[in-house]
Amino acid sequence: MTDPILIEVTRGALVESWHRGAIAIAAPNGALALRLGDVERPVYPRSAIKALQALPLIETGTAEHFHFGAAEIALACGSHAGTERHTALAASMLDRAGLKPDALGCGAHPPLGASAANALIASGASPTQLHNNCSGKHAGMLATAVHLGEPTKGYCEPGHPVQLRIHRALSEISGLPLGADVEGIDGCSVPNWAMPLSALARMFARVGTREGLPPARRRAVERILEACWEHPELVAGKSRADTVVMRALPRQVFMKTGAEGVYCGAFPELGLGFAIKIEDGAKRAAAGAAMALVERFYPAAGGLMPVGAIKTWRGQEVGAVRSSAAFEDALAALKV
Amino acid sequence: MTDPILIEVTRGALVESWHRGAIAIAAPNGALALRLGDVERPVYPRSAIKALQALPLIETGTAEHFHFGAAEIALACGSHAGTERHTALAASMLDRAGLKPDALGCGAHPPLGASAANALIASGASPTQLHNNCSGKHAGMLATAVHLGEPTKGYCEPGHPVQLRIHRALSEISGLPLGADVEGIDGCSVPNWAMPLSALARMFARVGTREGLPPARRRAVERILEACWEHPELVAGKSRADTVVMRALPRQVFMKTGAEGVYCGAFPELGLGFAIKIEDGAKRAAAGAAMALVERFYPAAGGLMPVGAIKTWRGQEVGAVRSSAAFEDALAALKV
Repeated sequence: MTDPILIEVTRGALVESWHRGAIAIAAPNGALALRLGDVERPVYPRSAIKALQALPLIETGTAEHFHFGAAEIALACGSHAGTERHTALAASMLDRAGLKPDALGCGAHPPLGASAANALIASGASPTQLHNNCSGKHAGMLATAVHLGEPTKGYCEPGHPVQLRIHRALSEISGLPLGADVEGIDGCSVPNWAMPLSALARMFARVGTREGLPPARRRAVERILEACWEHPELVAGKSRADTVVMRALPRQVFMKTGAEGVYCGAFPELGLGFAIKIEDGAKRAAAGAAMALVERFYPAAGGLMPVGAIKTWRGQEVGAVRSSAAFEDALAALKV
Repeated sequence: MTDPILIEVTRGALVESWHRGAIAIAAPNGALALRLGDVERPVYPRSAIKALQALPLIETGTAEHFHFGAAEIALACGSHAGTERHTALAASMLDRAGLKPDALGCGAHPPLGASAANALIASGASPTQLHNNCSGKHAGMLATAVHLGEPTKGYCEPGHPVQLRIHRALSEISGLPLGADVEGIDGCSVPNWAMPLSALARMFARVGTREGLPPARRRAVERILEACWEHPELVAGKSRADTVVMRALPRQVFMKTGAEGVYCGAFPELGLGFAIKIEDGAKRAAAGAAMALVERFYPAAGGLMPVGAIKTWRGQEVGAVRSSAAFEDALAALKV
């Protein structure tokens, strides 16, 4: 099955490039409100499921124990920009668990945020593991191991209790076995499990509505989502879609980007979850499709992110990144 | 028509993302040795045709007049890395034409080369137009205007004699009218014309072999290609495919990358030209497909560029960027 073109990139009168992808929008019971492209092929959600990877942090009592509040929980769910504030908070989480930054196993990369990256280069310092966009997630993982008296060494390994707890939570909410056949290692060295977009959308519908979740998990999910809505700047960073949209539309939209063209999220008021995968992995297309989806349900989101203009280096607009007619038609036809 | 998958990106046991695209390999008479995907849809070649945009620089006697040698000509054909050497050479070309860097109309962007970009940030300076990867091309364009007594102001405009000469040369070699319907403005603010991959491949076959070109143009093309093979580090930069491959295989391979997933080139010994377009515009896929093509004809190119490994931030290999089976089969079946 060939996925439809969702996003087009124009230059002059022509479409210069285009991005194919698949989208599922689902209710908590799995009923699909939208199915575009192949929504049954397994897709690694990557960072789009960080909010769910944070469940054990709450459910084991670790957050409580180390006095992690909304800020720390939001950072654990985030792909942060690597600013001073992000790195200091991750370091503080580790410190409260009695650990140093070298306990992190995520590896180092330059800050995702351009100004943070430039400031680091200008200072002459090298990126550390704290700058890794996943350092909050990893600090949370390490804290659970410390709290439960488990070794912190090897916490990234699929067989370590830290990852086994995450696997169990994902498996329970998705209703999928998530076996070794769909296991891959994420860029930050922890396991990630591929799921059909239909299952990811259903999972986020359950998360958004808390429907079908046991009471303790409902409370944990609620605490996680509220933390992200309270501190959206810790989930991503300045001018980034997840931050901008969740700041403007708390409790109405939860959204989280993942590498390789993935987006997942929930519209709690509408009782829906969504999952997007751009087949070529392009961020510009995943972000464009996610914003189109959010705007379909919340037109107020229309002005929040800059429109996808293709510009010359002198700033002249010579093309656009836009939704395809087929995608727009599908969104318009939605009965929601 | 849906283009085939040329490049796959794996993680664990699964293909995580994939890139569709089209490829044409042609002889100077247009006979196609390979046709994968839609090779008749117009594609903006972008920077892949810089060597041809440099033709008027030679044919008008401008290079001769300003004593531009192989280095300056190679830079005019290049998408350079923005190092000190590249920017100084572009500035020297302008200086010899009696111009200052502010005559450039390409706009400014950070150097393409990571170490040049970091050095600039560390110095506290902002990128200038000289750092633009196209500054050599623009310096050449400006020099032709000065040499022929034309205004330098407006040299980027489609109606300016500088661009009209380039349009005529491209139209003559391609055999296409290249009308306003296929005209777009490139990122560096000059016009670019979309052509079918079949025509681009044929054009590069003519360039590589000089077959069917009038004598003066044969000499100009020869001088341009020789300049690129003599100074491949000025056509791109350290560790970049065009530089590495042309340094290793001068006169056997001419290749040039373009934005939005384009690659064009020639194999003069084989009497063939090629053109690639990845539909989603991904550089990793265009580079992967071009290297696979080069290696098909010149196995020695196999070890020149790092194999496309997908690694964690700690350096563990967890996936790969590889040619699809269909693409490999098509390359293996080539009767060349």
